[in-house]
Order: sequence, then structure tokens, then C-alpha cells
Amino acid sequence: MRKLARGEISVEEAIRTLKLFAIEKIGEFARIDVGRELRRGIPEIILAEGKSLEELSEIVFRSIETAGRVIVSRLDGEIMDKLAKKARRRGLNVEEYRKARMLVVRKTLGRRETGGRVGVITAGTADIPVAEEASIIAEEMGCKVYKVYDVGVAGMHRVFDAVKTMVEADVDVIIVAAGREGALPSIVASLVDIPVIGVPTSQGYGFGGSGVAALQSMLQSCPLGLTVVNIDAGVAAGTVAALIANRAAYRAGVK
Amino acid sequence: MRKLARGEISVEEAIRTLKLFAIEKIGEFARIDVGRELRRGIPEIILAEGKSLEELSEIVFRSIETAGRVIVSRLDGEIMDKLAKKARRRGLNVEEYRKARMLVVRKTLGRRETGGRVGVITAGTADIPVAEEASIIAEEMGCKVYKVYDVGVAGMHRVFDAVKTMVEADVDVIIVAAGREGALPSIVASLVDIPVIGVPTSQGYGFGGSGVAALQSMLQSCPLGLTVVNIDAGVAAGTVAALIANRAAYRAGVK
Amino acid sequence: MRKLARGEISVEEAIRTLKLFAIEKIGEFARIDVGRELRRGIPEIILAEGKSLEELSEIVFRSIETAGRVIVSRLDGEIMDKLAKKARRRGLNVEEYRKARMLVVRKTLGRRETGGRVGVITAGTADIPVAEEASIIAEEMGCKVYKVYDVGVAGMHRVFDAVKTMVEADVDVIIVAAGREGALPSIVASLVDIPVIGVPTSQGYGFGGSGVAALQSMLQSCPLGLTVVNIDAGVAAGTVAALIANRAAYRAGVK
Amino acid sequence: MRKLARGEISVEEAIRTLKLFAIEKIGEFARIDVGRELRRGIPEIILAEGKSLEELSEIVFRSIETAGRVIVSRLDGEIMDKLAKKARRRGLNVEEYRKARMLVVRKTLGRRETGGRVGVITAGTADIPVAEEASIIAEEMGCKVYKVYDVGVAGMHRVFDAVKTMVEADVDVIIVAAGREGALPSIVASLVDIPVIGVPTSQGYGFGGSGVAALQSMLQSCPLGLTVVNIDAGVAAGTVAALIANRAAYRAGVK
Amino acid sequence: MRKLARGEISVEEAIRTLKLFAIEKIGEFARIDVGRELRRGIPEIILAEGKSLEELSEIVFRSIETAGRVIVSRLDGEIMDKLAKKARRRGLNVEEYRKARMLVVRKTLGRRETGGRVGVITAGTADIPVAEEASIIAEEMGCKVYKVYDVGVAGMHRVFDAVKTMVEADVDVIIVAAGREGALPSIVASLVDIPVIGVPTSQGYGFGGSGVAALQSMLQSCPLGLTVVNIDAGVAAGTVAALIANRAAYRAGVK
Amino acid sequence: MRKLARGEISVEEAIRTLKLFAIEKIGEFARIDVGRELRRGIPEIILAEGKSLEELSEIVFRSIETAGRVIVSRLDGEIMDKLAKKARRRGLNVEEYRKARMLVVRKTLGRRETGGRVGVITAGTADIPVAEEASIIAEEMGCKVYKVYDVGVAGMHRVFDAVKTMVEADVDVIIVAAGREGALPSIVASLVDIPVIGVPTSQGYGFGGSGVAALQSMLQSCPLGLTVVNIDAGVAAGTVAALIANRAAYRAGVK
Amino acid sequence: MRKLARGEISVEEAIRTLKLFAIEKIGEFARIDVGRELRRGIPEIILAEGKSLEELSEIVFRSIETAGRVIVSRLDGEIMDKLAKKARRRGLNVEEYRKARMLVVRKTLGRRETGGRVGVITAGTADIPVAEEASIIAEEMGCKVYKVYDVGVAGMHRVFDAVKTMVEADVDVIIVAAGREGALPSIVASLVDIPVIGVPTSQGYGFGGSGVAALQSMLQSCPLGLTVVNIDAGVAAGTVAALIANRAAYRAGVK
Amino acid sequence: MRKLARGEISVEEAIRTLKLFAIEKIGEFARIDVGRELRRGIPEIILAEGKSLEELSEIVFRSIETAGRVIVSRLDGEIMDKLAKKARRRGLNVEEYRKARMLVVRKTLGRRETGGRVGVITAGTADIPVAEEASIIAEEMGCKVYKVYDVGVAGMHRVFDAVKTMVEADVDVIIVAAGREGALPSIVASLVDIPVIGVPTSQGYGFGGSGVAALQSMLQSCPLGLTVVNIDAGVAAGTVAALIANRAAYRAGVK
Repeated sequence: MRKLARGEISVEEAIRTLKLFAIEKIGEFARIDVGRELRRGIPEIILAEGKSLEELSEIVFRSIETAGRVIVSRLDGEIMDKLAKKARRRGLNVEEYRKARMLVVRKTLGRRETGGRVGVITAGTADIPVAEEASIIAEEMGCKVYKVYDVGVAGMHRVFDAVKTMVEADVDVIIVAAGREGALPSIVASLVDIPVIGVPTSQGYGFGGSGVAALQSMLQSCPLGLTVVNIDAGVAAGTVAALIANRAAYRAGVK
Repeated sequence: MRKLARGEISVEEAIRTLKLFAIEKIGEFARIDVGRELRRGIPEIILAEGKSLEELSEIVFRSIETAGRVIVSRLDGEIMDKLAKKARRRGLNVEEYRKARMLVVRKTLGRRETGGRVGVITAGTADIPVAEEASIIAEEMGCKVYKVYDVGVAGMHRVFDAVKTMVEADVDVIIVAAGREGALPSIVASLVDIPVIGVPTSQGYGFGGSGVAALQSMLQSCPLGLTVVNIDAGVAAGTVAALIANRAAYRAGVK
Repeated sequence: MRKLARGEISVEEAIRTLKLFAIEKIGEFARIDVGRELRRGIPEIILAEGKSLEELSEIVFRSIETAGRVIVSRLDGEIMDKLAKKARRRGLNVEEYRKARMLVVRKTLGRRETGGRVGVITAGTADIPVAEEASIIAEEMGCKVYKVYDVGVAGMHRVFDAVKTMVEADVDVIIVAAGREGALPSIVASLVDIPVIGVPTSQGYGFGGSGVAALQSMLQSCPLGLTVVNIDAGVAAGTVAALIANRAAYRAGVK
Repeated sequence: MRKLARGEISVEEAIRTLKLFAIEKIGEFARIDVGRELRRGIPEIILAEGKSLEELSEIVFRSIETAGRVIVSRLDGEIMDKLAKKARRRGLNVEEYRKARMLVVRKTLGRRETGGRVGVITAGTADIPVAEEASIIAEEMGCKVYKVYDVGVAGMHRVFDAVKTMVEADVDVIIVAAGREGALPSIVASLVDIPVIGVPTSQGYGFGGSGVAALQSMLQSCPLGLTVVNIDAGVAAGTVAALIANRAAYRAGVK
Repeated sequence: MRKLARGEISVEEAIRTLKLFAIEKIGEFARIDVGRELRRGIPEIILAEGKSLEELSEIVFRSIETAGRVIVSRLDGEIMDKLAKKARRRGLNVEEYRKARMLVVRKTLGRRETGGRVGVITAGTADIPVAEEASIIAEEMGCKVYKVYDVGVAGMHRVFDAVKTMVEADVDVIIVAAGREGALPSIVASLVDIPVIGVPTSQGYGFGGSGVAALQSMLQSCPLGLTVVNIDAGVAAGTVAALIANRAAYRAGVK
Repeated sequence: MRKLARGEISVEEAIRTLKLFAIEKIGEFARIDVGRELRRGIPEIILAEGKSLEELSEIVFRSIETAGRVIVSRLDGEIMDKLAKKARRRGLNVEEYRKARMLVVRKTLGRRETGGRVGVITAGTADIPVAEEASIIAEEMGCKVYKVYDVGVAGMHRVFDAVKTMVEADVDVIIVAAGREGALPSIVASLVDIPVIGVPTSQGYGFGGSGVAALQSMLQSCPLGLTVVNIDAGVAAGTVAALIANRAAYRAGVK
Repeated sequence: MRKLARGEISVEEAIRTLKLFAIEKIGEFARIDVGRELRRGIPEIILAEGKSLEELSEIVFRSIETAGRVIVSRLDGEIMDKLAKKARRRGLNVEEYRKARMLVVRKTLGRRETGGRVGVITAGTADIPVAEEASIIAEEMGCKVYKVYDVGVAGMHRVFDAVKTMVEADVDVIIVAAGREGALPSIVASLVDIPVIGVPTSQGYGFGGSGVAALQSMLQSCPLGLTVVNIDAGVAAGTVAALIANRAAYRAGVK
Repeated sequence: MRKLARGEISVEEAIRTLKLFAIEKIGEFARIDVGRELRRGIPEIILAEGKSLEELSEIVFRSIETAGRVIVSRLDGEIMDKLAKKARRRGLNVEEYRKARMLVVRKTLGRRETGGRVGVITAGTADIPVAEEASIIAEEMGCKVYKVYDVGVAGMHRVFDAVKTMVEADVDVIIVAAGREGALPSIVASLVDIPVIGVPTSQGYGFGGSGVAALQSMLQSCPLGLTVVNIDAGVAAGTVAALIANRAAYRAGVK
């Protein structure tokens, strides 16, 4: 300001200096934020879709340095093989999940247990890849995962068996993946007193196909206690389920 | 053609004459078709929506002459009153159905029984007007109608009670009206060995509201044995249910 | 409860025990439900889409043990060949339907006749696969099926011939498959006194293409007596038609 | 340019001068275009919707000076009365069309006849206001209009009678207004050898309601010879029909 | 009836006899309708999409017997080659149109001239296949076709040149094909006093892509005198344009 | 069965008896299910929308007998007054929530505390009614609720203050209500390590208005840890948040 | 940390303390952000829609203290009157804009001039309120606004006159408001070398009505140089136009 | 006219002559318009999509003659190679941009600098191709472009760094490309006092996928100062940004 007064700088320069000052201040704050990823307890997850092997490799090997562990999702079989090979050559630990199309790369073995417990149920065989995606994320976030797949909706008995399994395991939250009319999450929600996360899957054709009817049904669901993530969003479901379970474990004093 | 040859008419006239001839032939056929309404066993049904009292009166009193009975649907309370009064003044028999917003006007009392049996179930209180619309049509088409309303979907026990009532009554077909996620028709269809007609009702707000989620769920339904009519289409559901039941009664030799 | 009173178990354990008790009770019920599939008279139908040959084989050969007959729908030509070969090697009877993309696998030959009669009409050549899907299901459910394909809608005369065939056969219900503007089911419904099931097919491009206009037209249809299943849903149409026809035959005392 | 060279004007001024020059040239052309409205033979039509009585009056009385005749569409009953009164007080000739919600205001009586012939058919009573809108426009553009209203679609015989009337009148083009599934324009198109203009009307509720199913059906129509205007677009239909008929009359040498 | 009275037939048989009688009558009418295709002046057009070479061949060679000329649309290059070869081997005349993906097969050479005149304009290069489809249909229906392609919309001058060409040719109707925002048909309509048929083409990506924005713009168009066919519906546009032009020629007494 | 063997009953009767037996068994199960509502810990909630005062009164006073407490949502001001008066006259305790349009009716005062902690944040003033709906439900389910309303999104500082409040209160879950582009839930989710429930509100006009853009944004959200309920679904959000918080409190041994 | 080591606090407390520390830091940053509104040069704008007179008054009179000037948009006539009266009673300067439904309340008279120049064009009369909204915002942001309203699109000459006015005024940016097919912004963009902002207005009915066709057309526009804001978003258009113009003025050194 | 009076020409000829005269006048104007492309300062840009190598070559080599420079967008890798080779063989200068899928072909090297400054920011890696498309256009229009890619939205600190870079470079406008929930443009707009252009990219799956949620979010954005182009419309964004920047530079007197 004094410089401006003495005419050493123009008004324009002064204004720009002020703007930069505000941004600098913001920059300082930004630095603090660096630890956010760790603080939140959500692992580094990279969406492979639309990235080349080269791009993926670069991002994975750059991230692993600071994060210690990287999860890659939506991988094509071939690229998964090549990426896994590359990682192993660098001495990294690699776990391949074909059905879930996921790769977990880590520097050191072992996974922290939080004490959180997550249930995962699928209506049909076709919903399994999405459910597996969710399961792996929840496990990587330290939860114990209990799965009952292919429960159907036409025959009610397998639904009850699945819910029984969940109650016996005393899970903190249940993820239910279902396509077409997406009724299973509502039915499960109507039988338990814990939160249920519905994941519509892109099953079904014709009007309401590709998971749209399932998404709408879950959003319109009469039995309360159900929240929803996007169609095929296994990663989102797994993350929020683990946050719920880990919160419960945290309050229970489980470490 | 001879006239054309002799130059008595122009080519244009000849062509037009030929066209008219074809249409005349069609006209003759059309005459035969006059009895169709009666043959099909579907009563004369007039949609009141968008018509003034004057227009409605004219149509009703013109139709009653040939049809003997006229059903008016989607009537506002006030217009229903006035129309009923007008009809009674002319010495016609009038039945008023407030919930269903329907009026049945007939020359002579009495209804032919066909022996068909139709079940009608609703998920909630809000679905009742649509279900009533269907019931009245089915009754006017000679069927005996068995109703269980407000069955809910959250609590499964009332669903089973409702289905039990239907099985005991040995109905030929069940109409199930449901809004929001529209799961009830699928559940009913999964429990019986007779056809089920789903009627989505315009309940629910937000994404998939106004009956859209319900319609999609019913179309995507996994349990087989379910067909669908349009949102709030009680008249359509009642008609097709009566056709199914009457067909069964006809084959059973019931008159 | 006594254990709780005596302090042998904690309150948490007591609550969980109660929950499990309720679920056990439900489990017992579930057992009863096992016979449902047979009771409903709907054969075991497996959707091949999105399943590998290995997954399909496993499901088919597991199901055939209890069900005696399994129908596989939406099969790619190549997978159909391999699955059929596998099944024959196991000494099972196999029927291949190329147009319908279906495979019927059964332990013993022969099909129970119910006395139900189903008519199937298509508007165009492109609607035939969907119609065939429906026909096979209806036949497997014991109905006699009468077909008239490629009836068109531009020329009215073939429509009347088709309806005449249906009336002569005295069918209990007519399935009409049509794409684009989907007008044929409405026209057929306006000519008969039996229920008509419209199946929109995914024909047509531009606005309202892929069967959407056809579905909407059938739902908006003025002539009453028409119900609808989803776009390309041949299996759903065949099932509900057979339920209607079998109900009629049942009441007629036909066995 | 010279001024620029001599430094009398800056480069900026020079550029702006050039831009203005181009625009001026365009302006000259624009003047020529003034006669377009008259040349095209389409009357001045003002949409009343969303305009106050004051705004409407001002526009109508300004336009009437140059155009000699003004048509106001989509008028509320009350505003129509007041506008008509105002116009009559100024000594103008006014025709009021209640059903069509239109007002025709003209300086001198009489309408030029072109020799064009337009047919107008409606499926139901509710389609009449749209059809009337179209009729009035066609008449104001000098055509003779032949109308058959409330033809229905359930009973085929009235359809043939309507078409017969059109063929006898030897019309140049037929407008067909229909809501819900909008099948009538297709059926009419399949019976005649002249162009048919489909006008979907905003009838029908549920999926495909408000004219959407009708619009889609007409666009997907199998029988060729059908074009479409927007939902409820009676003015558009009337204009294009009159252009077609007037073109035919022009080539026939009719004046 | 007498048979019924004498007890020779049951009531059921009597009813069925009556139904068949009505259908027979309809059957007779249907026969009359056979000549419709010829009467309407629209050639036999077969949509190749979704049909195998075998199916196409069978339909084409069956139809050519009665129709004398068959047009096949939406042909893949390879199938076109094979179908053309097959047709030539049978001694038929074949014209191949690569851009339009069309094949015209005829028994004898020569085309009837009607005196109708059709203009065809496209906005861009990508709209040409659709425009060609329309042109060929119009020519096959006896019209003379005047084309101006790739007129653009950014530069107004080519628009005026195109319209000038149309006015000089004194065409009866103009087809305008345009994608993306679809503004060209409106602009052309605002400059001429003859009907304009807009054909939206499936150009453009993002919101309103695949021809949807173009279709909506044409339906919402402010300048009157424009009708619309479906997205990419060149055949529909060509047919209705030819009907308009042929009607004008017919009234002018041109043969 | 023995009766059947002895011919005392027909096969039909036998089949029906069997069907009824299965349903009876189901009925028994259903009885067990009666306690479900209590077991789940979700209070009786009645949607007032579309119900008359009479219907509401009847449902409320019937339910209060068994449930002890009833919540009525989406009440119009006038009906709320009358219903409250009626309830008080019957000696019931009534709490009126104008903003939330809710009424809580209970037999005895007092609310069980669970130890669950729920945070509620709104983006704007218009989102408050939905947030209040959620808050009341969560409180009725025994949670302590911490609210920060009108946080905005344009200015980031109030967002941080709101999150700080939540972290200080150590809540188990945060509900974030936001309309228009619905960005706030994503931002909150990116700053905390507990689950976030996004509630889109029906704010915003034009494309993506009425909450659609908000719903889509939340479903597409990049920061993980966010689930979603339907547009304006405050009740659903409150319920699931309370289930999450109560589960955490339960595991923490809080009673 | 030391406290933790000495056991004075639990691990849970330690973690919470750390979290709060991070948030505090963020809080500091947030303080800096307070001046953002002023720095950006965008006035305080309050959306009246959905707020009561009391809520509005409170927000306006609280904001005016710090902001010095407040703009209220989307005001109903009656509430505008009352709010204006209230403001005047407090000694504030009030400007009422009926067409734009806006109120500008300021402590002291006078408006800073920036030297920015904004053009505003509307296609029709119905687009004026939206255009006025934009104009007022631009003026309040210090720009000089040049308006040409009701330019039409049918007649090209008024378009050129409007553009000429804009070029003569040497504006920095042009806002063009248009409904229905929304072609005007594209045409204007094709004639100038400055940015054009299209504002679709909620005009038009049927398919593509309520501004959807206009929005799509502008997004699909072939002529480059056009950006878009949401339907009826006059405030958004005015703000961005002023930012563009003010940036140009800033670089020109105009103060 | 005199010829008409003397009977030398018919009325029809006279009318056609008049029409042609009007069109000729328009033609003259059109000539003037030829320079438009140059005047607007927007380079010749050719969309490769849907064009064969032959078609592209022809258009490019024809345009380069008059335009001096041609940009080809949306090129497949293989066609780009071949087109580049062809152009080099003709002695033209060619720049290949793989990521942006663009080719710039020019007669002579060198690019005019305008003094405009454009910022380009992307949310993720997948948004880079669209951003590059925009950058190249802006550079070709003479602007200096400042880029910060892969800024993310989960971590706020990189957002501030990116904005800081833009403020330091003192850009005139910022383009922000983002997919999925598309929140980044809003955040950037809330931090700067210059116009921001949002480009939704076709990222994201499920409901709101393919860029729809991003487009809606940007249109609904609360922070003012943001305009939008269509999904993936990098060329449109680059053009309008350059027009804004060049206008600012023009007013600053920069050449």
C-alpha cells in the first residue's frame, strides 16, 4: 500500500498483489489439508476406466510412495495382468480380484483391523461384481465382511436365511446389491434395525432397464432405513458402509 | 368405365368414382361392426375429465338409448351431483361412487352375473380410488369382486392374509394397485398361480415419483405372472381382469 | 430371559437371542415355501445374458436335479451349441430354439397338456424372436399355441385373417408383439372379447425408438382389454398368458 | 481508408466503420424483406398466452394498420370479450371463436378464396379445440375446410365414414388431431393417397400422457404419408395444410 | 339359429358361429383392400435393418412378383452387393445407391413421371444420406427432384442461393434435412410460400444430441409452414413430399 | 389326502386345501412379525398428504393405541391445527412443528435417549423444512441432534464452521440438505471421517430443477463417504441417520 | 500429545483434539474469505421465491448493513410493495422494477461506472422479464446496457437492425434471450466478433416446451461464440456479461 | 409488370419473377457476407466425425486455399496420420495434437498474437482431451493459454494453487472442464472476478452419467459468474473464451 502511495506501483499492480495475498493465505491452508486422505481413513482408489496402461502405471507408482497402498478399480483383464506384473517387478505386494476387476497394490503386507462389521447381500449372480467391489473396499478399510450372494427375490426363504446370517454376525450395516426392480434392499431394510445401503446394478432391459428402475425403487422405498448410492457404485457403497461400521467400532472402543 | 370410354366422364371423375366405390365397400363392413361393443361385453364408459356438464349430459343421454347402461369415470364431486340429479329426473337408475369418482346410469335395474371372480388388493389408503374404479368396472362386467385394501408392504403379514383371502375365494385373477416403489404386485404374483394385473398409482414424489418408479418396477419384475396397465388406469385394469375372469367362467360353462 | 435375570448372559446377548429366535421362526416358514415354484406351475427359467458358459452350466445342471426341466433364455448361438452338447453328454434331452435364442433341457421327455389355448400374433418379421420366446414358454406350461406372424398394420386384411384364426381356435388369450408405434395390440383388442397381452418390441429409431413409443401406445390404448409387459419381454408375456389360459382350463375341469 | 492513412481516424475507428458498413448493407436487404409476410400468404397470428390485455391490445391495433387482419390465438374467455369489445369500438370487424379460443380482427369484411381444400378429422371430443384452431387458420388462408369430428378409434366404422367424406370432397390434405395413443392419423394415412398432417393433442395421463405417446406414435408410424406438428399445435397444422392446398390450387390455376 | 333352436348345436357353438360370421364379413372387406398399395401410389419399401440376407431375398423376390418394383432401405454395403447380384441373376433390373444405402429392384425399366416437383436441401455433409433416401423415394414416386446439399447455417448466403434454386425450379414442396440445433428448416420455411418438411438427422452429441435438439427445434419452430418427420426418417419425408407434389400435379391436370 | 382317496372331496378341493394350508403356515409366521415395528426402533410415521382430516384422525387414533406414539408428516397448517385439537381433547400429548409440517402425538411424555448423535446441515433457508423433518425423526428415535442451518456454498467459511461444530459434538453421522447443484454434501463428506447422508431438496428451476441436478450430483459425487435419499425425503434421511447413530451407541454400550 | 503420553487424556480425546486443530486452521482461512463478495464485484442478490415477507425483510435488512446494497429477485407484486414500503420507512433508497420482478435497496444513492458495455436482445415480448433481470444486474455491476427487445426471428430485418445497434454501441458482450426453438442467439453469434450469452426462456409448449428446446438448440449451436446459462436465468446472464464487460474495461484502463 | 399488362407473360410468370427478384436482392447481400468468417476472427474448423478420409481431404484442401489455415477436430488416430501425410506432401505446415485429436494445417507458419489471455483448468485426467481441444482453439485465435490440469475436487489445496496460477497470469477468462458431479467450475467461479466457462465432460456412469449431472450442476450453480457450453464441447469453449479475451485485449489497445 505504501508502495502504491509512493507511486512505485500502479493501482492495477496493487490490486493484483492483494488478490495474490488472499490466494497465498488460502495456499497455506491448503497445505494443512494434505493429511486429509489419511485422516479420513479412505484408501487411495484409482478409477482405471479411460486410462491407458502407461497413465495408470504412472499414477499408481507415484501414489504408492506417499499412500503406502493403492486400489485400482474397473480394470480390464489384460491391463490388470500387465499392471500387476509391473508392480511385482518393483517388489510391491499385489492382490488381484478378477470378479471385482480390482487390484490392490501395497508396500507392506498386512491390514489394520478396525472391528467394524459389514454385511453384503446380492439379489442375483449378475450383481456379484458390484458386491465384490464393495466388499474389497470395506475390507481394505479394516472391516470384517460377511457375504451372502444370489439370494433371489422370487423365493422368500433365501432372503430370510441371508438376513439371519447377518443378524448372527451382528453386522453394523448391510449393503444390498440388486438390479431390475431392485426390491431386495427394501425387503432387507424392513427386517433389520441397522442401516441398509442399496446399490442398484445395471441389470434389466426395456423401460427402467440398466438399473434405473432399481434406483428409483430404492429411492421410493416405503420401508425406512435405506440409503442409496449410484448404479453399479460398489466403491461408494463399500466406503460408506465401512465409515458406518468403523464409527460404531470407534465408539465401542475397538481398535 | 364404359362412361369413361364413351367420354361421358373425365379420367379424374372415373378415379374418384373408383375410390368412392372402395370406401363404400368399407362402409358396408363398418355397419356390421356396429354390434362390436355389445359383443365384447365391455360397457360404455365415458371419461368425464375435460368435458363440461352440458357435454357430458348430452353424451350420456344419447348413449343410454342404445347401450342401456353408461358408466362415467373421473367425475368431480359437484358435476357428479348435478349429472346424477339430471339422470334421475329422466327416470334413470343412478349409482354414485364417491371414492371411485364414478357414476353408473342404467335404464333398468339388475346386473347379469357371469361367474367370473376378481380379486382387488391395494398397498395403501391412497391407492383405494384407483382400486374402486377397477372393482366397479369388473362388477358391471358381471364378476364377483373380492377386495382387501391397505395391505401395506412394510409388514409382510397383511400381505399373506390378503393372498389367503384371494385363494379362499378362488378368484380367477388379482388386481394389485400400488404406488411409490410398487413392490406389492410382484410379491403377490410370487405367491399365486393365477394372473396378476399391476396398477401403478401416482403416489410418491422426487425421482421416480407420480407412479413412474412403480410402473418401472412392475415392468422389470422378476417374479413372472404379472402384467401391467398404465399409471392410475383403474378402468383398464378392471376391464382386462373381467375379460380374464369371464373367459374362465365361460369355459367352465357358467352362465 | 431367566438366564438374563440370573446374569448368565448380558442384555446384548439377550437381545440378539431374541432377534435370532424371530428369524428362526421365519426360517421355518421359508422351508414351507420351497415347493412354491412347482405349485405355481411356472418352469425354472434362467436368463443367460451376462453369464459365462461355466456359470450357466453349473446353474443348469444343479437346477435340473430338483426341477426336472430347465429353460435357458437369451442365449448366444455359440454358447447355446456348447451348452446343448454338454447337456446331451450328460444324457439329458435338449431342444434348441435358434430364433427364440432358447434351450429347453429336461430329464424325461413329454410335456403335460393343460387344455389352455394361447394365441400369438406379430406385427412384423422383426418381432418374431420375442413372439417365439413367449410361445415356447406357453407350450412348456402346457398350453396349445396358435401363431400368426408378420400380420402388418398397414394393410388391414391380414389383421382380420389373424383374428379369425384366433377366434376359430377359440384361444383363451392373445399375445400381440409389435414395435415402432405399437398399434396392432390395440386393434386386436378392439376386435375380440378375450384378454390381449401387448409386448412392445425394441424396433424403431429416433424419438420413441427402441420400443418406447410402442410401450407408451399400449399403455395409453383407447380400446380396453389390453395389458402390457416390458419391451422385448417374451418370457413374461408367455408366462402370464399361460396362467390365464391354464386358469380357464382349470375352471373348465380340463386336466 | 484514406482518413485512416492520413491519421484522421484511429485503427479502431476504421474497423468499427467497416463493421457498420457491412451491417448497413445487411440493413438494406432487410428492408426488402418487409413484404415477406404478405408474400408468404400467412396471416398475422398473435399468441395471447402470457400477455396482458393492454399488451395484446397494443400489438393488435398496431398490426392491424399494416396487415389489415390479425388473428389472436389461445385467448382466455374474459380477455377475449374485452379485446373484442375494444376492437368493435374502433370500428373493426371481429369474429369470436370460443372453442378455438381465437379472435379474428379485420378492417374490411370478406375473405379471398384460393380453391384449396383442407380436411380436418378428430379422434375425440377433447381434440376439437385444437382442430378448430387449425380450421380457422386454413379458412383465413382462403381454403374450404371439411370437418368430421369425434371419429373415435375403437369403432372402425366411423373412421371409414370420415375418410369417405374427405374423398368425396376431394380435399388436398387431411389434418388429423388425436391424443392418448394417437393411432388415428396412421389409420387415415393408410387409407388415402394425399398427405396427412398429424396433430398430437395433450390428452392422456400416466406414462406417455400429455400427448407424448401420441407424438411418438405419429413419428414412428408404419404407414407412410404422415407428417407431424407439435402437441396441440393447431395453428401450425392449419398453416401447413393451407400451404399444401393452396399450392395445389395454384398449380391447378384456381384463383 | 334354427339349428340352435332344434338343439342341433349348443349355445357355445352358436356364439362362435356368430363371431366367425362377423369376422368372415370383415374378411371379405379385407380382400377389397388388397389394391390399396397401388391406389396410394407408394412403392413397396422394405427395411433391411435386422433382417438376414436370406430373409431379405425371400421378401424381395416374393414381393416383386405382385408389386413389379421393390425398394430396400438401410442396407449394409456387403448385403447390398450380394442382394444386387442375386437379383441380377434372376434377370431383374437393379439400381444401387451407396450413400442412401438403398437398392431399387424392378422387373421392367422406366419410371412414370407425375409432374410433381420436390426440392431437397441439407444443412451439412452428414445429412446427405438421409436426404438421398428421401430423394430416391420421391423420384420413384414419379417426382422430379431438385437438390442443394451442404448449405450450412453459419453463412447465410448459401441458404439464399439454395432457396433461389428452389424458387426457380418452382418446386411444390421442400425437404430440409438438418442435425444439431436444426435451425435450417425454420429459416427456409420463413422464406418460401410452399410447405417445408423438416427431417432432423442424428447429428450432435451431448445434451440434445442424436437429433433430439433438432427434432425439438423443428416442432417448436416460430416461422409457420413447417412439418416434421422422425429423426433420420428420409423415407417418410420422401413419401409425404411426393404425395404433396403429386397432389399438386394431379390438380394441375399433369399426367 | 385320505378324504381325497375316499372320494369325500374332489381333486380341486384337495388342491385348494393344500394351497390354504401353505398360506396358513405363512399366516402363523406373519403373526410373529407383528412386533417388527417395535423391534426396529422406527416410530409409526403417517404421511398426511392426500388424506382427509377424517381419514387421518381415524388412522392416528387407531395407531396410538398399540404404538403409544404417532408422527404425522407433510401436514397442511389448517389440518395440523384441527388434528392437534382433536388429539388434545382425547387427552393425548401433542407437539406441533410448523416448519417441518409435522405433528408428534404421544400417550405419555418423555423420550428414550439412545446416546446416538446426529448432525444436520442445510445449504440454504429453503432447505430448512426438509432438515427439520429429519431432525425430529432422529430425535424421536432417541438421538441428540446438532444443527447448523443456512451454511451456503458460495462462501466457504461457514462450511468450515459448520463442520467444526459437528466434529466438536462428535456426531456419528451428518445429514446435509441442499438443492440446486447440491454440492454441499460432497464438500462436507470430503472433510469428515463419518458417513454423510445427502438429501436433495426440490430447489432450482430450468434444466435440472426441482432437485434433479442435486440428486444427480450427490450420486455422481467424487469424494467418497456419501449416500443419498430421495428428493425432499427428510423422514428417510432422519431414520437412516438415527439407525447409524443408534448402532454406534449400541456398540458403545450406551443405553 | 504430551498430555496423551502422561495419560492425562485418552486416545479418543487426542484424536478429537487433532481434528479440531485442523478445522481451526481452516477456520482462520475462512475469516480471510469474508471479503470475497466485495472483491468479486458481484452485488448481494437474494432470491425471493419460497421466502415469506418476514424472512425476506430480515435477510435484506441484515445484509444491507454490511453490503450497502441488496438486490431482491423473483418478487411477487404484493410482497414487492410491502418490502419496498418497509425499506423506505427505514430511510433506505429503493428502486422497484415491476417487469423484472426486482427490487434494489441501497443505503446511499449513486452507482459506480466501470466502463463495461453490455447489449441485451430479446426474441419476443415474453422474453422481456428475463432480459430486464439481466439488464438490472449488469447496470448494478457498473455497466452501460444497450437494449433491443422483441426482435423476432421470423423477419430477419429486425435482427440486423438489432445487431447494428450493438455494433454502433461497441458493446463488449451481447445477452440474447429467446424461447421456443431458441434460434436467435445462434444467429446473433454468427454476425458478431464478441461473445454472446444465450438465455433460454421458458416459452413454448408440447415436446421441447418450457425452454428445453431452446436450451438444447443453444448448446448444439453450429455458429461458435455462444455460451449458455440456465432457462430463465436472467441474473446469471447479467452477472457473467458484466464480468466480461468489466474485465474488458479493466484492461482498457477505464475506471 | 408492363409485360404482364401487355399480356406478354402470365400472372404465374410475373409472380415467379417477383419472387426471384427478392431472392436476387438477398443474393447480393449474401455476397457481402463472404468475409464474415475472417471478420469474426474464428478459424475454419472441420468436424472429422462421420467423414471419410476422402471427404475430409477434399474439404481441407479446398478450404485451405481461401482460409489459409484449417483446424480438423475429433480425428481418429489413423485418419489423422494419413491426413497429415497428405497435407505435408502438398507442402503445407501441419501440427498434430494426439490428446486433443486435432490437426492444424496452415499455408504459412506463424500465428498472430492478440494479447488475450485464457486459463484452462481440468478436474481430472479424463477431462484433458476436451481441455486441450479448447486450448488449441484459443491459441489459434491468438491468445496466450495458461493450463493447470488434474486439479481434483476432493482435495481443496490444488484448487487454490490452480486459481493462484490464473490470478498471477492475470488471465481474462477461465475455462474449467469437469465430469461426474461437475462441481469444480462453481468453486473456481466463486474465487475469481473474471468470467468462467464450464465444460461438462462425458464422465460418470449410472444416473446423471455421461456428463448430464455435470451439465445440470453447472446450469444450477449458486455462485454467479459461470456460463456453460455443451458436454465435451471443447471447441465451443475455446472459441468463446478467445472472443472474451480478445475483446479485452482489443479494448486495452493490445495488437
